Amino acid sequence: MSLLVVGSVALDALETPFGKTDRIIGGSGTYIALASSFFASQVNVVAVVGGDFPKDKIALFRQKGINTEGLQIRENEKSFFWAGRYHNDMNSRDTLVTELNVLGDFDPIIPDAYQNCEFLMLGNLAPAVQSTVIDRLKKRPKLIVMDTMNFWMDIALADLQAVLKRVDVLSINDEEARQLSGEYSLVKAARKIMGMGPKYLIIKKGEHGALLFHGNEVFFAPALPLEEVFDPTGAGDTFAGGFIGYLARTGDISFDNMKRAIIYGSALASFCVERFGTERLENLSPDAIEGRVQEFIDLVQCEITLTN
Amino acid sequence: MSLLVVGSVALDALETPFGKTDRIIGGSGTYIALASSFFASQVNVVAVVGGDFPKDKIALFRQKGINTEGLQIRENEKSFFWAGRYHNDMNSRDTLVTELNVLGDFDPIIPDAYQNCEFLMLGNLAPAVQSTVIDRLKKRPKLIVMDTMNFWMDIALADLQAVLKRVDVLSINDEEARQLSGEYSLVKAARKIMGMGPKYLIIKKGEHGALLFHGNEVFFAPALPLEEVFDPTGAGDTFAGGFIGYLARTGDISFDNMKRAIIYGSALASFCVERFGTERLENLSPDAIEGRVQEFIDLVQCEITLTN
Repeated sequence: MSLLVVGSVALDALETPFGKTDRIIGGSGTYIALASSFFASQVNVVAVVGGDFPKDKIALFRQKGINTEGLQIRENEKSFFWAGRYHNDMNSRDTLVTELNVLGDFDPIIPDAYQNCEFLMLGNLAPAVQSTVIDRLKKRPKLIVMDTMNFWMDIALADLQAVLKRVDVLSINDEEARQLSGEYSLVKAARKIMGMGPKYLIIKKGEHGALLFHGNEVFFAPALPLEEVFDPTGAGDTFAGGFIGYLARTGDISFDNMKRAIIYGSALASFCVERFGTERLENLSPDAIEGRVQEFIDLVQCEITLTN
Repeated sequence: MSLLVVGSVALDALETPFGKTDRIIGGSGTYIALASSFFASQVNVVAVVGGDFPKDKIALFRQKGINTEGLQIRENEKSFFWAGRYHNDMNSRDTLVTELNVLGDFDPIIPDAYQNCEFLMLGNLAPAVQSTVIDRLKKRPKLIVMDTMNFWMDIALADLQAVLKRVDVLSINDEEARQLSGEYSLVKAARKIMGMGPKYLIIKKGEHGALLFHGNEVFFAPALPLEEVFDPTGAGDTFAGGFIGYLARTGDISFDNMKRAIIYGSALASFCVERFGTERLENLSPDAIEGRVQEFIDLVQCEITLTN
């Protein structure tokens, strides 16, 4: 089924203990679109880039079946740019440079061909822009999934609360869940956040896996213990892209299918961190994904016969 | 099958954001013995206490089927005492008081009736004392599981390395695994630590679950997302007690059975943190344990049909 992805398509410069990159492609929309393209039959992107965004990467998107009709290219401006440096533990990082550039006044125009998309993924962007996207859809999608970050909780909480009322699934990390809810216990945090609108909440815990909450139900997907995390950039967006891509492929939005979607999202995220930026996602075979999903299944596989 | 437990049997004074206790019973041996008593047909304890250790708690041990013949009582001395205060996140704590008392010159005397135990659990103690216990057993147990902590890595590393060569399973937390191996990646840390002796390594990650490593195999058991952690004291020892207790009950030391044992250990630990000290363990029914194990199974339950 068709999927609409809105997010940042950007340039990043990354530094990890393993090395550093020049400007490479990044942004929430980029990772989500690439990840979901392994599953969804049609991925439609709405985003904005400047003239500095490499044309061959736009061609790559198209090769992957990603529709770029909604990708605005402002030739005389610059793409959103982020530079960051990861610490040795890979769990903390310093932002060295943030240049909004074309993203500063991004107007998410939805091409007519994108109307009637059944799945909508709102990647991390200003909450007001996320709301505008929903406003502009003539028909509400079957499922709206949204990602956000602590930055918007700090500077645009009212806008964030407004868009939260309109989405089905929120995907955030544990620190963000604690900040948004004011609760340390993730069980309590989840209950409060689901009270803000989303019926489903995904809490990403990085190397510690991910939790899916819905009403009183909870599912836990582990992360794969890895030899080495080479570059964590985009792992959360790749997870979200795999999640919604799998849902769009199957068309099934039951809780049981969301569990599977989380395993697929986790598998894709585990590939993402193996190389800098999008490199691993650009060169990934469907067979490798299935093999990785099998590793996730095996990791928690345990046969127990209870005595009562 | 019979199980020998050696560890500290002590008094603790605890302070958490939920309240504080007077001197209550604690220590690695206490938690391990109580937890394993739910499974193992015979739990034999070797430990030392002072005259201040409550006699009704020794009677309680006996009621639970714990053999206290090896519990030395030095009436004119004081029990090992630890006082600590947990911070709001429950993941960090300050030690307020540590008094070694009778533990300072603890000589682990093994009663004749304890010889030929098939399972040995070496709770957290000075590594030299742990070695002495193995020296004094006429027959090597079928399985030796050992717990330790960063304190011994700091002050008695050579002793620790010596005892590591003699045990089958080591149980430590993630921070300790990183310290002992000098590796941040837990996969790399596990490989190095297994190179030091133990064929099996359990890495406890607290609220993030536990990993079991053996050769190239790895198993992950989640922790149950809890509303509230009331008091984390003894959770790791309770986990270890449930683990070895389950192995002793079933007599099966295969990797597959160790997975089950880890789920049982995790289930018991999830009860332990619901009340101060040993309170919850003292009042726990076998049915409640089975119900909790079912929750652990359900938490990661996911049916996936792979396409290849």
